[in-house]
Amino acid sequence: MQSRHKGAILVLSGPSGAGKSTIINAASSEIGEYYFSISTTTRAPRVGEQNGVDYFFVTKESFEEDIKAGNFLEYAEVHGNYYGTSLKPVREALNEGKLVIFDIDVQGHRLVRAKMNDITTSAFITPPTLKELEQRLRARRTDDESVIVNRIENAKNEINALGEYDFTIINDTVEVSAREFVIVAKAARLKQSKEEEEKFIQTWLG
Amino acid sequence: MQSRHKGAILVLSGPSGAGKSTIINAASSEIGEYYFSISTTTRAPRVGEQNGVDYFFVTKESFEEDIKAGNFLEYAEVHGNYYGTSLKPVREALNEGKLVIFDIDVQGHRLVRAKMNDITTSAFITPPTLKELEQRLRARRTDDESVIVNRIENAKNEINALGEYDFTIINDTVEVSAREFVIVAKAARLKQSKEEEEKFIQTWLG
Repeated sequence: MQSRHKGAILVLSGPSGAGKSTIINAASSEIGEYYFSISTTTRAPRVGEQNGVDYFFVTKESFEEDIKAGNFLEYAEVHGNYYGTSLKPVREALNEGKLVIFDIDVQGHRLVRAKMNDITTSAFITPPTLKELEQRLRARRTDDESVIVNRIENAKNEINALGEYDFTIINDTVEVSAREFVIVAKAARLKQSKEEEEKFIQTWLG
Repeated sequence: MQSRHKGAILVLSGPSGAGKSTIINAASSEIGEYYFSISTTTRAPRVGEQNGVDYFFVTKESFEEDIKAGNFLEYAEVHGNYYGTSLKPVREALNEGKLVIFDIDVQGHRLVRAKMNDITTSAFITPPTLKELEQRLRARRTDDESVIVNRIENAKNEINALGEYDFTIINDTVEVSAREFVIVAKAARLKQSKEEEEKFIQTWLG
């Protein structure tokens, strides 16, 4: 989709197992060019995880230097590991007019809103019920019981932040969710920054 | 478009001559069932205006009774005449799951936001420039010079409220504007009320 607008941000949150990646993949041919933001972390890569694909894996020292230099759009420390989003690739993608998609948690969403509210749209993606989430996580057979329990606890907390999001996508069937996601992504692209708006008003008045 | 959601509100504002009706007509086959809210006024009908189509024309007494009874979603007094939106037909349309479209001014938008923010999406529709607006108004040859001057003055004031709207549609060509309008209207339908959200969270937790 072509747009006269500059880039915009689409934040996706929701429990692991909600089907975010599946929905994005199902919708990707219809949402135009986008940049999927890759987080930076100090935690060790898990089996199968690739640097620059799943995360940018860095040392604690390097991460802390970047914090001091103000290089993160948002970051948090979870269980002794840092997770964050570097500003630079986001800025570049925005300047190229791309839609920047984030898969971050409730806290990350708040931080992005605080910094770039005017160009940010957000959606909370969730399975229809907690029970369904639990079933999906177990059916994947990829996680230890302790990881599953932890994810469910997180989900129970995060669901209460639903109201902070522009949209809720209840992922019952991928077809319906992908269709809703396309609408949300296209709407996200129509957002203008305050700066663009002010420039437009000046030009408009002539 | 089918939706599991209850009704939602789409507020359109922007200068007379921006092309709001043209855009809605061009987009109407793609935005699903909607109810176009008809305002109530105490001003006299102009030549060609029909009661129940352009406005509901009522007496000042009747309007003031409805104000006292809390029957208006929003109302204002302009140059000695009242203009307002009755709550009843809006409530009915919302209960039927329809998208309710309002064509109201900046002040009306603020009042709707104040009362029904959670289910409200808004777009400011404007010609690309003030000069273009002036040309369009003159080309219509339907208004007196004093009316045109008044509309231009209003437009100059209202453009500054652009930032209060979720979206800006710069109506350069009807095709592009209608396409953007379809996105905005479909996104508007995805909005959930706080009540629906809370109910969902309760059901979700099980």
